[in-house]
Amino acid sequence: MQLRRVCYTDGMDTTFIEELRAIVGDDGLRVTDAQKHVYAFDAYTLEKSLPGVVALPRSAEEVAAVARLCHRRGVSMVPRGAGTGLAGGTLTHDNQVMVCLSRMNRILDIDLPNERMRAQAGAININLTKAVAPDGYLYAPDPSSQGACTLGGNIANNSGGPHTLKYGVTVNHILAVQVVLPDGEIVELSQDDHGYDLVGMIVGSEGTLGIVTEATVRVVRAPEAIRTLLAVCHSVDDATNLVSAIIGAGIVPAALEMMDQTILEAVERTYHFGFPTEAGAVLIIEVDGPEVGIDRQTERIEAICRDGGALRVSVAADAEERAKLWMARKKSIGTIGRLAPSCMTQDGVAPRTKLPAILREVGEIAAKYDLRIANVFHAGDGNLHPCVLFDERDPEEVKRVLAAGGDILRACVREGGTLTGEHGIGIEKQEFLGLIFSPDDLDTMAAIRSVFNPDGLLNPGKLFPAGGTCCPQLPRTDNEALLVMTHTHATAV
Amino acid sequence: MQLRRVCYTDGMDTTFIEELRAIVGDDGLRVTDAQKHVYAFDAYTLEKSLPGVVALPRSAEEVAAVARLCHRRGVSMVPRGAGTGLAGGTLTHDNQVMVCLSRMNRILDIDLPNERMRAQAGAININLTKAVAPDGYLYAPDPSSQGACTLGGNIANNSGGPHTLKYGVTVNHILAVQVVLPDGEIVELSQDDHGYDLVGMIVGSEGTLGIVTEATVRVVRAPEAIRTLLAVCHSVDDATNLVSAIIGAGIVPAALEMMDQTILEAVERTYHFGFPTEAGAVLIIEVDGPEVGIDRQTERIEAICRDGGALRVSVAADAEERAKLWMARKKSIGTIGRLAPSCMTQDGVAPRTKLPAILREVGEIAAKYDLRIANVFHAGDGNLHPCVLFDERDPEEVKRVLAAGGDILRACVREGGTLTGEHGIGIEKQEFLGLIFSPDDLDTMAAIRSVFNPDGLLNPGKLFPAGGTCCPQLPRTDNEALLVMTHTHATAV
Repeated sequence: MQLRRVCYTDGMDTTFIEELRAIVGDDGLRVTDAQKHVYAFDAYTLEKSLPGVVALPRSAEEVAAVARLCHRRGVSMVPRGAGTGLAGGTLTHDNQVMVCLSRMNRILDIDLPNERMRAQAGAININLTKAVAPDGYLYAPDPSSQGACTLGGNIANNSGGPHTLKYGVTVNHILAVQVVLPDGEIVELSQDDHGYDLVGMIVGSEGTLGIVTEATVRVVRAPEAIRTLLAVCHSVDDATNLVSAIIGAGIVPAALEMMDQTILEAVERTYHFGFPTEAGAVLIIEVDGPEVGIDRQTERIEAICRDGGALRVSVAADAEERAKLWMARKKSIGTIGRLAPSCMTQDGVAPRTKLPAILREVGEIAAKYDLRIANVFHAGDGNLHPCVLFDERDPEEVKRVLAAGGDILRACVREGGTLTGEHGIGIEKQEFLGLIFSPDDLDTMAAIRSVFNPDGLLNPGKLFPAGGTCCPQLPRTDNEALLVMTHTHATAV
Repeated sequence: MQLRRVCYTDGMDTTFIEELRAIVGDDGLRVTDAQKHVYAFDAYTLEKSLPGVVALPRSAEEVAAVARLCHRRGVSMVPRGAGTGLAGGTLTHDNQVMVCLSRMNRILDIDLPNERMRAQAGAININLTKAVAPDGYLYAPDPSSQGACTLGGNIANNSGGPHTLKYGVTVNHILAVQVVLPDGEIVELSQDDHGYDLVGMIVGSEGTLGIVTEATVRVVRAPEAIRTLLAVCHSVDDATNLVSAIIGAGIVPAALEMMDQTILEAVERTYHFGFPTEAGAVLIIEVDGPEVGIDRQTERIEAICRDGGALRVSVAADAEERAKLWMARKKSIGTIGRLAPSCMTQDGVAPRTKLPAILREVGEIAAKYDLRIANVFHAGDGNLHPCVLFDERDPEEVKRVLAAGGDILRACVREGGTLTGEHGIGIEKQEFLGLIFSPDDLDTMAAIRSVFNPDGLLNPGKLFPAGGTCCPQLPRTDNEALLVMTHTHATAV
């Protein structure tokens, strides 16, 4: 099936801008280069592009009015939350409108007896949990960037987090969405309704089907008790084998994270937590549940770790020690700036039992390209995040970084895994889609996109190669022109 | 978007039957009325229709060859598993081919370290668990019909079961599917792959997008300990209020089922378990998890039940007593034959907190239409199964049954619920789709169907009113012509 193509012809002229201003107000518009610069990139640090204009609507009705205007004028739109995505999904061309939902950040309704709450798409992830925590509930998906990333961005990328292992990814927690379609229609979709699973289709669609303006999410009871363990291992091999041993024993930890020597070094240089930097790797293992029984479960994990050759296993003594461990983990990517000027964080997946093999292969790839790679990741899920260290001012090194990233993804797919665990395809991974999808698969995806987005005006050029408009895909920037990114922009993973 | 329509013109002639025979073999074909009679209905007991021919392929390749033949000849196909569906999703017209997957029932691969197994679509649900039980694992979705229903049928209807409350419905357990598209192409879809969630789209699509031939499912560790409680309540009101009290206390039972006085009477007349038939309702409450702590959790539930006015609470003393309780629950619909010649089992959903109100309304609907309605259902999920008792030989009573069913569904939707919890739309509920979907919603669904099923040759007339072919919808049988169904055909719920 061919997508209908609409050409952008009439430019982003003054009339268009003024019509936009009439919808979102003067304070809802960013038009100058200086204003737009902060919207020129997301946490995919290898490309940037200034949007034509940035609109910051305050309601679904304003988003719908913007969409109707763009639809009438044949201008394409790119939705954005906080820009913490790793795959360039929010990069916006200069003839496109960025629709940024960050001002639509309200919690709308809390219904604890039915264990659900409703919030606008721009609500920051952590604020969902904060709103229900006093009543003993939480919103389970917890990306490491949860202090910044938005509910809408999480929905677009079907985001996970350390606690995905036990609680599942975003799609498992979204009960209903309000979506503005590319022609400006506002629709409400619910998981409760039968028929085809349109909520599931929207989640993970990276803003190519509609702009999510609001969602109803599940909230779950905060666990009565939590225990957080740190297992210090001689090698990455030992650590990844322990992962399989713990799961194989029938234990489902709430989280099971790995950090290798390189990332520990970066964390220590920044925070001085006292991690044993001579260790090859550490595991952070968390269990939660009823108070009764949790200590026995903790002891079982300690025994498995010791039997599996861990050098040391300790349990966080209190909430403060626990918070320190999680801060080390969640802020770890941000500390890499202590080791190198730049970092490209990959996001691949391998079967849990293949972790030892794939991590060895990542090491070989690092050696092959003469690069340093740090590993910090959701080991329990087999979701790797190799962080490739480099200097973006060295174009030859940048080439090696891109080649190493490709090799890592190919290795994941070869081992039975896939291209992304939680950060999406964006523009970064389109060239690898052929590793997992046939041309027919991609045609089917394109046909589904055309059902929602027949004119290709919504986030063209993202997720799939066929963008559905005649607008050229975002140019890959020359190596020479690579952005100098500070590491605070690299999203947590 | 309009569906392309292909007219069935050339009949199911001898050549066609012989071509079919060449694919599936003589033993894979049912052509005489006597042979086809058993395929003329499913557990939606109010209509029947003899298929043109029944094909029983033995492999995905045979299914694909059948699809290619039908595609070439413009004949439509209806997939079927065990026929335990409640909504008529497998009813097949005399110019259609039924593709019955019951011979494709093999377990193909078990991969416990990665907690997954692969099976053919015709594998019987209970056999998945049996295959991994010796190693301490289970396949979680457990419809009450699990001794008969198939994996493929569960996928088509996104089936639940008593343990859905804790473990989720079928879609939460399907990792990948192999699907034969209506033109005979075989595709493999995986949850692991990004792009649009096509696995989620297939699950619950009631055989209108493709014929699932194989699936990879999650298996989970069997819990270390299980406790099953029986709470005897004075009234349905007391029982439904207890449901909210238990969940509100932060307990997530593995199962939380309700049976009212009428269904208890039927169960007792059949099995003589010793249930207190003077009770207004009973709850079966099951918790599972680590051995340590489970008794304290059980005691908390007992206390909540007593505080909530339960007349009696008891804990099954051993595995045998536990099995007896579950047998009573799972076989309960089958016992209704002791009370009336016929039964129509509804499948609606209401928010858990609205259960007391909706159950009162079901009682009022019974009174209004002078019908007896028994209730046995997944209370923890708010998934009602009112069983309307009647005599199908009384056409006037049948009219009242249909009217009562409609009133129940309208009440569910009015209270914020929906039309089906786990048994689908089929042909039964299409007239009610307008209660939850706008015409635009239905157009979107039709457009998605046309992506997979452009000629409308796969299960036309099901799920959505627009079947996509010129074949007339299955005629609603006259009241006078209603099938005399024995209750052994009514699927368990």
